[in-house]
Amino acid sequence: MENNQIEKSTGRIAENLETLKTFTATPGSGCTRLPFTKEARDAVNYLKGVMEDAGLEVWEDAAGNVFGRLAGSDASLPCVMSGSHYDSVVNGGDYDGIGGVITSIEVARLLKESGKTFKHDYVVAGFCDEEGMRFGTGYFGSGAMLGHRNPAYCDNFKDAEGISIAEAMRGYGLDPEKIGAAAWPEGSIGHMIEAHIEQGPVLDAENIEIGLVTGIVGIQRYVITVHGRADHAGTTPMDMRIDAVEAASKVISKIPDWAREKADGTVATCGVVHVEPCGMNIVPESCEFSVDIRSMNNDNINDITRRIRAALDRETKAIGATYDMDTKLVIEPVALDEDMLNVLEDDCKARGYSYKRLPSGAGHDSLEIGQVLPTVMLFVPSKDGRSHCPVEFSRYSDFAKASALMTTLISKLLDE
Amino acid sequence: MENNQIEKSTGRIAENLETLKTFTATPGSGCTRLPFTKEARDAVNYLKGVMEDAGLEVWEDAAGNVFGRLAGSDASLPCVMSGSHYDSVVNGGDYDGIGGVITSIEVARLLKESGKTFKHDYVVAGFCDEEGMRFGTGYFGSGAMLGHRNPAYCDNFKDAEGISIAEAMRGYGLDPEKIGAAAWPEGSIGHMIEAHIEQGPVLDAENIEIGLVTGIVGIQRYVITVHGRADHAGTTPMDMRIDAVEAASKVISKIPDWAREKADGTVATCGVVHVEPCGMNIVPESCEFSVDIRSMNNDNINDITRRIRAALDRETKAIGATYDMDTKLVIEPVALDEDMLNVLEDDCKARGYSYKRLPSGAGHDSLEIGQVLPTVMLFVPSKDGRSHCPVEFSRYSDFAKASALMTTLISKLLDE
Repeated sequence: MENNQIEKSTGRIAENLETLKTFTATPGSGCTRLPFTKEARDAVNYLKGVMEDAGLEVWEDAAGNVFGRLAGSDASLPCVMSGSHYDSVVNGGDYDGIGGVITSIEVARLLKESGKTFKHDYVVAGFCDEEGMRFGTGYFGSGAMLGHRNPAYCDNFKDAEGISIAEAMRGYGLDPEKIGAAAWPEGSIGHMIEAHIEQGPVLDAENIEIGLVTGIVGIQRYVITVHGRADHAGTTPMDMRIDAVEAASKVISKIPDWAREKADGTVATCGVVHVEPCGMNIVPESCEFSVDIRSMNNDNINDITRRIRAALDRETKAIGATYDMDTKLVIEPVALDEDMLNVLEDDCKARGYSYKRLPSGAGHDSLEIGQVLPTVMLFVPSKDGRSHCPVEFSRYSDFAKASALMTTLISKLLDE
Repeated sequence: MENNQIEKSTGRIAENLETLKTFTATPGSGCTRLPFTKEARDAVNYLKGVMEDAGLEVWEDAAGNVFGRLAGSDASLPCVMSGSHYDSVVNGGDYDGIGGVITSIEVARLLKESGKTFKHDYVVAGFCDEEGMRFGTGYFGSGAMLGHRNPAYCDNFKDAEGISIAEAMRGYGLDPEKIGAAAWPEGSIGHMIEAHIEQGPVLDAENIEIGLVTGIVGIQRYVITVHGRADHAGTTPMDMRIDAVEAASKVISKIPDWAREKADGTVATCGVVHVEPCGMNIVPESCEFSVDIRSMNNDNINDITRRIRAALDRETKAIGATYDMDTKLVIEPVALDEDMLNVLEDDCKARGYSYKRLPSGAGHDSLEIGQVLPTVMLFVPSKDGRSHCPVEFSRYSDFAKASALMTTLISKLLDE
């Protein structure tokens, strides 16, 4: 029976996701489904049809989100919401975001097929522009649902061609002045459940079927520039040069080990390094580098940031250099809902699914929502940990298993 | 008498160099006098006029070099040659190279004015394309004089617009097939003396008038690429990532201190760093960096190179990365002529000039020539050590002092 149901769900999820693969601006080169584009429109129209076929009441809101409701017996109660985003990055994969939307629709189908009636509404959400790729933002649709976006925000951010969110919305048939109408009344959403691909290698490497996400890591991101002096690399003695790469590399080289020492999943990355003037025979005048630090423990992030500042002070002073440290991002960790995690864990045991509790190192709609509402996430494994690229791959059967676990949890919540 | 002569030389050198400043492709933005261009032609024509006015027999050769001869009494003897190059880098300064050519012409004027006749010929050389800026080469004219350049070489190297040395030569009125004619017969040049700006900060910082160049440092230059793996910077645990910047920075950060430990003027520089894909939230897949090591002691260069390889082995192995190490340049140190240095040093003492023996950290025509012939160099101070830029500055009076010292040395050599 269990196997039959998973096979049935796997088939339906496969059909939906295979169709959604076609709504890309870059056929043959992965999924490119930016917000407020033809591909977004095609995907939303398809999702609406799928949700209607599942028996849901369907609508779009003022922010480009799409919703489907399975009405409960008491409309005065807060709903239980489940979903993810339908947009992608440029040349991304076919599972990130959209896999979670389809899994939530599968939950609706399973709830319908159970023949039961529930007290609360169940609402499937397909959020608009989680990735923030086009306008350099993020969590647009889920933020608007929470009342966190306004018309000024829509005017403020522009894409690479100078088109603002507001202009893009108008081209898509939405009125940015009415973005406030996308906000749900306080108390109208009781719980949020999101399924998503892991986007990391842990589950795949350990051959685990389901990740139970304990929280979403906090992030601090900095761009640091060490200012030295350009000199001839042959004629300037070592004690007369101010080599920006020397000071910077003495700091950069220590950062990964500081993260490892925490031994609790804390990570730190220097992904960007730019040197000026960047000539083989010129002592570097400046060295710019980024640092991205993530942890479920905000104290660990703060400690590494403090060590970086101290090392920059020390190494620049040693050679007479200076530095700037520009704060790009500060996000505090968000703990996900322990009660919902326990229900999911018990169900994993009951079904015999292998599972692992782990934090999410990437941001999600649940990061925005989890700051306000009881929220939980499930991860399905990402092959080789790859995502945001055409080779991104997750198994339809793993999404089906997530839908089974979510149906158990959501059935319970809908009757509370 | 001494002061009168220096003032007279200063005035003549000033007039010549002020005129030569006008032969630039970038007026107002420093000197841009690339080989086989209109600016090169204008400069050579001017130099020929100045040399003729000084009473020299003037000619150009098959490689674009310009020469002026003050004939001695015995044409069978090897000549004494003095000179430098007349080309510049793009947006370079008005003293690098050309200052040495004019100083050598001033020596000819002083020899003439002495009224004496000499046994050997004195030959002033203005070399073509020392910088190698246009075609990615170097020491073209001096190399051709030594018989080290051939027609295949001229076909092989091209500028940014795809024009080969050979094509550029033809456009300038030279026949690259006859480049061999630029070679001087073996034994025809007895000594080489070159005055040049220091291009480093040592003399200026110590307020010293003349540098006596003991040798030209050896250089080893490498481009190293560490190959890691691109991963999501948030979702990839520290023990599952292969961070190319981590391994590279652990090597780069040690290199300057290895050079300092030598405590003999050895220098090492990582001037270029490139990271791919260079995203703030992506673990670096590759990190390419350059290393340029220079020393008068070749063992020191070899030792640092060995330490770099050992550190690369260790740091890449620690995280599962790999690396390539591409050799770009290997030049052995060249010692300059001790006998000539001693004559110059004695004359500095006699004239009361402050001086310092020091190696040249930059390459020069004398690097090519010094491998074959007894060669010596004099440095005049560079303000703040700056060169290859429009603010490059050296005092005309320092070139005049160099011309006085060179006249003493060359007079002696011409009568041996």
